[in-house]
Amino acid sequence: MINITLPDGAIRQFEKGISVLDIAKSISEGLARKVLAAEVNGLVVDTSRVINENATLKLLTWNDREGKNTFWHSSAHLMAEAVESMFPGVKFWVGPPVDNGFYYDMDLGDRKMNEEDLNALEKKMNELAKKNSEFIRKELSKTEALKYFTEKGDEYKLDLLSNLNDGEITFYTQGSFTDLCRGPHIPNTSFIKAIKLTSIAGAYWKGDEKNKMLTRVYGVTFPAQKELDEYLLMLEEAKKRDHRKLGKELSIYTMDDDVGQGLIMWMPNGTVIIEELEKLAKETENEAGYKRVVTPHIAKESMYLTSGHLPYYADSMYPPMEMEGEKYYLRSMNCPHHHKIFAAEPKSYRDLPYRIAEYGTVYRYEQSGELFGLMRVRCLHMNDAHIYCTKAQFNDEFRAVNEMYLKYFKIFGIEKYVMRLSLHSPDKLGIKYVNEPALWKETETMVRNVLTESGIPFVEVQDEAAFYGPKIDVQIYSAIGREFTLATNQVDFSQGRSFKLEYTSEENISETPLIIHRAPLGTHERFIGFLLEQYAGKFPTWLAPVQVKVLPISDKFLDYAKSVSDKLKKADIRCEVDDRHEKIGKKIRDTELLKVPYMLIVGEKEMNENMVSVRRQGKGDVGAKPVGEFITEIVAEVKERSAE
Amino acid sequence: MINITLPDGAIRQFEKGISVLDIAKSISEGLARKVLAAEVNGLVVDTSRVINENATLKLLTWNDREGKNTFWHSSAHLMAEAVESMFPGVKFWVGPPVDNGFYYDMDLGDRKMNEEDLNALEKKMNELAKKNSEFIRKELSKTEALKYFTEKGDEYKLDLLSNLNDGEITFYTQGSFTDLCRGPHIPNTSFIKAIKLTSIAGAYWKGDEKNKMLTRVYGVTFPAQKELDEYLLMLEEAKKRDHRKLGKELSIYTMDDDVGQGLIMWMPNGTVIIEELEKLAKETENEAGYKRVVTPHIAKESMYLTSGHLPYYADSMYPPMEMEGEKYYLRSMNCPHHHKIFAAEPKSYRDLPYRIAEYGTVYRYEQSGELFGLMRVRCLHMNDAHIYCTKAQFNDEFRAVNEMYLKYFKIFGIEKYVMRLSLHSPDKLGIKYVNEPALWKETETMVRNVLTESGIPFVEVQDEAAFYGPKIDVQIYSAIGREFTLATNQVDFSQGRSFKLEYTSEENISETPLIIHRAPLGTHERFIGFLLEQYAGKFPTWLAPVQVKVLPISDKFLDYAKSVSDKLKKADIRCEVDDRHEKIGKKIRDTELLKVPYMLIVGEKEMNENMVSVRRQGKGDVGAKPVGEFITEIVAEVKERSAE
Repeated sequence: MINITLPDGAIRQFEKGISVLDIAKSISEGLARKVLAAEVNGLVVDTSRVINENATLKLLTWNDREGKNTFWHSSAHLMAEAVESMFPGVKFWVGPPVDNGFYYDMDLGDRKMNEEDLNALEKKMNELAKKNSEFIRKELSKTEALKYFTEKGDEYKLDLLSNLNDGEITFYTQGSFTDLCRGPHIPNTSFIKAIKLTSIAGAYWKGDEKNKMLTRVYGVTFPAQKELDEYLLMLEEAKKRDHRKLGKELSIYTMDDDVGQGLIMWMPNGTVIIEELEKLAKETENEAGYKRVVTPHIAKESMYLTSGHLPYYADSMYPPMEMEGEKYYLRSMNCPHHHKIFAAEPKSYRDLPYRIAEYGTVYRYEQSGELFGLMRVRCLHMNDAHIYCTKAQFNDEFRAVNEMYLKYFKIFGIEKYVMRLSLHSPDKLGIKYVNEPALWKETETMVRNVLTESGIPFVEVQDEAAFYGPKIDVQIYSAIGREFTLATNQVDFSQGRSFKLEYTSEENISETPLIIHRAPLGTHERFIGFLLEQYAGKFPTWLAPVQVKVLPISDKFLDYAKSVSDKLKKADIRCEVDDRHEKIGKKIRDTELLKVPYMLIVGEKEMNENMVSVRRQGKGDVGAKPVGEFITEIVAEVKERSAE
Repeated sequence: MINITLPDGAIRQFEKGISVLDIAKSISEGLARKVLAAEVNGLVVDTSRVINENATLKLLTWNDREGKNTFWHSSAHLMAEAVESMFPGVKFWVGPPVDNGFYYDMDLGDRKMNEEDLNALEKKMNELAKKNSEFIRKELSKTEALKYFTEKGDEYKLDLLSNLNDGEITFYTQGSFTDLCRGPHIPNTSFIKAIKLTSIAGAYWKGDEKNKMLTRVYGVTFPAQKELDEYLLMLEEAKKRDHRKLGKELSIYTMDDDVGQGLIMWMPNGTVIIEELEKLAKETENEAGYKRVVTPHIAKESMYLTSGHLPYYADSMYPPMEMEGEKYYLRSMNCPHHHKIFAAEPKSYRDLPYRIAEYGTVYRYEQSGELFGLMRVRCLHMNDAHIYCTKAQFNDEFRAVNEMYLKYFKIFGIEKYVMRLSLHSPDKLGIKYVNEPALWKETETMVRNVLTESGIPFVEVQDEAAFYGPKIDVQIYSAIGREFTLATNQVDFSQGRSFKLEYTSEENISETPLIIHRAPLGTHERFIGFLLEQYAGKFPTWLAPVQVKVLPISDKFLDYAKSVSDKLKKADIRCEVDDRHEKIGKKIRDTELLKVPYMLIVGEKEMNENMVSVRRQGKGDVGAKPVGEFITEIVAEVKERSAE
């Protein structure tokens, strides 16, 4: 008998040689029907894999990232089978899963693939899926494998084989298609119930533009039609909410070739949002006992040698400026400057926790091909802060940081979020991780406890911590279900030492503080990009660049409109008057397009009674009310940062 | 008879060949006694100069910059005379007037000069001054001049002569001292009534470290003892108010070798001041119809080729970062980025004036020897904005900018200020200045009228405008009378064209806007440096990093102290509790040193009656009052930005 340890810690005994699928069945037949693959001792394998020794086991379904990846990888094989049946002689390069689906790169010879082909391929794939073909794994010697692909005349697979050795080579076959593949795969093709091939693109072989251009076909598949329908709906909605489209329509930001790629210029409307976010952050951080600092965007090479950014992070930094025999770098992180502020004056335990915050601007080199709207940029304004504390203070400080995240999620209507707790790996202490086993255990336990106690959903990942301590990546989901990595929250035992940071303890001993790196609102760039999608550009009133537009029915009421607007401005409401010589219908339609939260229509009746007729974004006409009453209401709404 | 036009426009007639001094006498004997030199047709000359043709004339006294310069230049000659009498064989290089006094560079051979020598020299100068020696001008041929200095064996003056030609060479003699000198000089040495030699320094000949080190003696002189006394008092006060000293004592800012020279890191206390200044600027600019933008700190070479910063301003910029075959520069000015924002969307006359503001950070290369505390730095946070307007709007816009300056002066208690209006020179149109004679005349007249109408004191300077339009430098004086150049205010007809900025006029024609560059609060660095001196670190309550400190008489009252502090914090007052186990006397003394505006002493009586005993910075004990009353008062004081 062997012991199988399940993720909840339960241990079950089975006969030696039992397959993963049979273990699943022993737990529940329903579960077994959903299992796509499994993690055995941390390694992802087929469900047909037999187990001969004690092991840890995690069954993977559609709800697991690795389950989805296996599903999509198998779907790529299914697509290849369909392509081979329609384009005989096609040669395949690689076909991995990606964030939302999969692709396969192929050499179609002189042939081209078009939209119609995609439809036909989809149909073919559906047919093949229904055949219920098993994915069969076979181990081969290198000689056998070379023979197979030489006979097939596929130089791409031969190229892949050239880097593999005996004992590493497996083929997977489903139906009529056989591929060189490490696996794992789903049990059989019938799991794939819904298929959408999304696009055709060109891709240089091995990403090198000197090589031949291959055809890349993207697709996505699901275990049920309903999920595909939802996905397509989400895509359509995402298109409408595309932050690049909305960013332009609402005059949020612009870019310019003379300034440079990935360098956002925030126009007045975008800057209003920035300032509201900063105001929120400053209020929140002030209440939480943070102090603010302002530091320059550059520093000398020596600072980044101390911090370790050089040479390890050099590829992500802008190249240096050489001056007076020194190299200056644009900073890619704010922490070193903050450490210098901490060190500028002697500190004692009475000064801790010392929390310093800055909306620090950092510059990071991203390949130009990677740049994408506000999501991947080269200049980032970060809601950054560093907390220097004693070990005894760590728990409270870390909890407070998490509570700040939750507070923000509530304000911005973020209902779904997951934290990903990255831990160290004990066998890599002193290599990949600071060699402080006790401190690792201690902080990891503290972090885990805080997450558990706060009821925050989280997953744990082994061997993905930062060099200097455990790390939390915060993933949030927009209103249409798209995932965004918002921010990182890190514990740091190491930099304090590198920078020789010290405080005098109550016992008059010099100690090194722990450091928490945190940025709950991420960067302006990514967060505003997220908010554009989240709100579909219809910002809540407190964030809206223009909060109220006053629309006089005709020029006769322009003065009254202006007097209303002046009153609103005095109450710190961002208000404009539509003073164009246009019909009221057109004024309303144009203002709708700008997604202004409130329109106030004013004509004869309103003027005589000192009223305004209110149209609320998304609700239409909500009736007339006295100007003073409207002001009281909107001021309260803004003050509360109401999401409505 | 010739016509002499005086600065007020009055024209007086005199005999041909009359001297400047005689004209002064004809106006008033009292005035004549004060005249140090004169500007005839824009050229500064001796008072003995005779005038043979119609001319404009400005008599220069101690109150004119050029008058002072002449006075100090003559004082340098007087010092040289004294040096020569005490150090026979001394050789002189140059002896110009500087901002506050004068210096002379000299070669003393093997001899050294010390503090005692300075005292003896001062005494000697006083003696010589009383001799009432005239400064006598003599024109010489180059041959004669060479002969004189060859005989004297002065290779430094021979070096100077080598660059001069016949007709350009004059000597000035007073008493026993003769110098090669262009002049002009004051009438005689008796004008110099008070003398202070301030320091001795080394200075390489011609500023080149490969050359011999000469001795430089600095001094300052005045037309009355009283003014010297005031000056010395001011120097002493300036030492106490030295922004570098106060900046450290009050934890305002720090610098670090690993970050780099001239790169200020603002500590929490300094950042409070920055944020208050930015809040003031944002409120003021918002009311004045400005919108805000946020732009990156770098741009590509092409942008600075368009703006003309490259190659003309390259020496003042950080060197480029080379990436992907492009050169990126840290910006030294914000304007090009703002022009790009203007250009990002089509504009019509309805969008103008378009006013965009940003606390833009710029980087400028200053020689490390020039760096000085907050006054000369390499990273500057600038209260910048650009106004794009039509010609018809220019007058109002420019007036509004000036009014903003005056508003700020009032808030910061700046009582003395001068604006320096730099105009173009018609003969350099198309060379040094944009060739738009009508536009120059028009805008110069507009600017002059606005200054006159606003009653702002200003001086006009010919031939010092920017390439693209007239320029105003704003000079302010601190509470102890020191002069600071705060900011520049510029009119720009040129960059709009270089950047192809356009708007559609009411007549549907594409036009180029005029641009006003303005920064009334200058840079954080210089302005906070100024404020430290202005307030001697005793910031008014609204600006003070810590506004209130609560001092419990003993630990027994610590809880009450904290409850008072919490109430103040809720009212947005920056408050701290002195919770150390110290005697109340020490707590008071320490808080005095930190220059906190209010101390609240709390003990038995205060706790029982819910009162606080208030000590006001600079006023001492001002009595006890209920907590609520104190809060109401201080909140009002902060809201008004009271200077008290």
